[in-house]
Amino acid sequence: MAERSEFALIRHYLSHLGANRRDVTLGVGDDAAVVVAQGQSLLMALDTLVDGVHFPSDLSAYWVGHRALAVNLSDIAAMGGEPCWALLSLTLPDVDEAWVSAFADGLGALAARHGVAVVGGDVTRGPLSISVQITGRAPATPLRRDGARDGDRVWVSGHPGDAMGGLSVWQSAVHRHQARWRGLRRAFLAPQPRVALGQALTGIATAAIDISDGLAADAGHIADRSDVAIDLSTLACRPSSRLRQWLGEAPAVDAQLGGGDDYELCFTAPASADDAVLSAARRSRTPVRRIGGVGIGAGMTCDGHPIADAATGYRHFER
Amino acid sequence: MAERSEFALIRHYLSHLGANRRDVTLGVGDDAAVVVAQGQSLLMALDTLVDGVHFPSDLSAYWVGHRALAVNLSDIAAMGGEPCWALLSLTLPDVDEAWVSAFADGLGALAARHGVAVVGGDVTRGPLSISVQITGRAPATPLRRDGARDGDRVWVSGHPGDAMGGLSVWQSAVHRHQARWRGLRRAFLAPQPRVALGQALTGIATAAIDISDGLAADAGHIADRSDVAIDLSTLACRPSSRLRQWLGEAPAVDAQLGGGDDYELCFTAPASADDAVLSAARRSRTPVRRIGGVGIGAGMTCDGHPIADAATGYRHFER
Repeated sequence: MAERSEFALIRHYLSHLGANRRDVTLGVGDDAAVVVAQGQSLLMALDTLVDGVHFPSDLSAYWVGHRALAVNLSDIAAMGGEPCWALLSLTLPDVDEAWVSAFADGLGALAARHGVAVVGGDVTRGPLSISVQITGRAPATPLRRDGARDGDRVWVSGHPGDAMGGLSVWQSAVHRHQARWRGLRRAFLAPQPRVALGQALTGIATAAIDISDGLAADAGHIADRSDVAIDLSTLACRPSSRLRQWLGEAPAVDAQLGGGDDYELCFTAPASADDAVLSAARRSRTPVRRIGGVGIGAGMTCDGHPIADAATGYRHFER
Repeated sequence: MAERSEFALIRHYLSHLGANRRDVTLGVGDDAAVVVAQGQSLLMALDTLVDGVHFPSDLSAYWVGHRALAVNLSDIAAMGGEPCWALLSLTLPDVDEAWVSAFADGLGALAARHGVAVVGGDVTRGPLSISVQITGRAPATPLRRDGARDGDRVWVSGHPGDAMGGLSVWQSAVHRHQARWRGLRRAFLAPQPRVALGQALTGIATAAIDISDGLAADAGHIADRSDVAIDLSTLACRPSSRLRQWLGEAPAVDAQLGGGDDYELCFTAPASADDAVLSAARRSRTPVRRIGGVGIGAGMTCDGHPIADAATGYRHFER
């Protein structure tokens, strides 16, 4: 199933289920939902990783555990929130104690680093998949996808595309363990959700999203939801030198725009907030750069040219 | 994988992951976790249903949707809480619009009936499974599994075993559509979480659990967690007349003790609270009856005899 038809399915059938509650501030369609409990706004997200779809089947259990939590922390980061509690549902084809132990280590280490307690869960038999749900405290003004305005700048953290490059390093029998490609390999194995940056950007950024489908596709989600056009500059987008060395110049640009699973943040902010953005990046020790601008209209362009649809629908590890 | 080793796995590896937070009142091991946000105690649960394990592969999408939410509502019911917000993660092998539409109808109808808003989720490609996470408001004293005391009575709602009997009706080519077995069939297809009863029992019951693994196994969880012995009376346990008619007397007793997926509540209360329990049942329009007692010691017995282990490990729809 292509990502696009999945999104269409969600919107169509699953976006307005159940009761209308006044304590729901933001429902289906952003990185996380926002609900209000006793005056405290809470962020909630749920993501499932399926073996062979969201991670390669031979990925070690430690990094599967890390990833299962990281994708959820990234959702909270994209809203500017503070992650607090997680629930874990693990579906396993059989009992493999060593696997579960390593999985728990990977998930637990990342949880501890972010102050998250795993408070409950479920283990069940079936084809390998992992669902993690996370609840966090929302900031006063959560970073939504629909707040970008004409004239805003578009920013991104870190080096999108490196995760996709790192996957091909990791899959290479020859280069997998070479020290030279260690940085790329880590970008794939150990994505670091940008929780501190998201928090630092609250009150500054006008919109934000985490990059799971690819930079162009996810910036496109901001454009769609905000009812604006976004133009990216390939010059500003220049991929990391390690990615250019690994893939070559042109494929590196494609990987940067179309690769997924980076879990970096793409966000917008008014031009007047440039200094505030850079200061937030410094405080959170996260590299960021300006990669484009927001204008009147709709859709995504790159240097003024439409981006081919094929480049924007990252399909995880599908064959 | 047997249920027992799953539970052992959970306990071993997944029960203390991540940070120790003081706002976590109750972690892994009960029907739901309890956390405190801004003075409001919240209940959280997450359950996954796997195709062919937790429901038969040919179950209609409407009832799969109903079940996916019902098992979670039942967790909130077992804590005496008020369900509020749900997140849904749907993993599908391919795009089947008719299936998703019917699934959404079944889940949405039950959500609306219980005042629950589905606030977010995820659709992903893979072997069919559904994860639903639910958050609810906790009562002042949540109904935990570990509160049963020597001298308490053991109670159960509804008719455990009927769901298992209903499954065999539903699987019978000859009897599936006969009006005579409609009640049993409904007990399997459309389990009704006992949310109102759970709420009515807060401040009265000393412990509670919902029956997903089977009456004997789940009562055994209360005994284990409360560090007490529980003795059930087969006379008081007498299965429903429709189940006895369908299965015969002896198999009906086995189904009642060992069948699962009833989503009834098993709970304990002091002898002095008999009237209060019956009044709570009337207020919530839920049939309940006394089926045993709590004593000093450990483990489960039936009329004073140990219950064979084989009877207490319900294995869902495994072959």
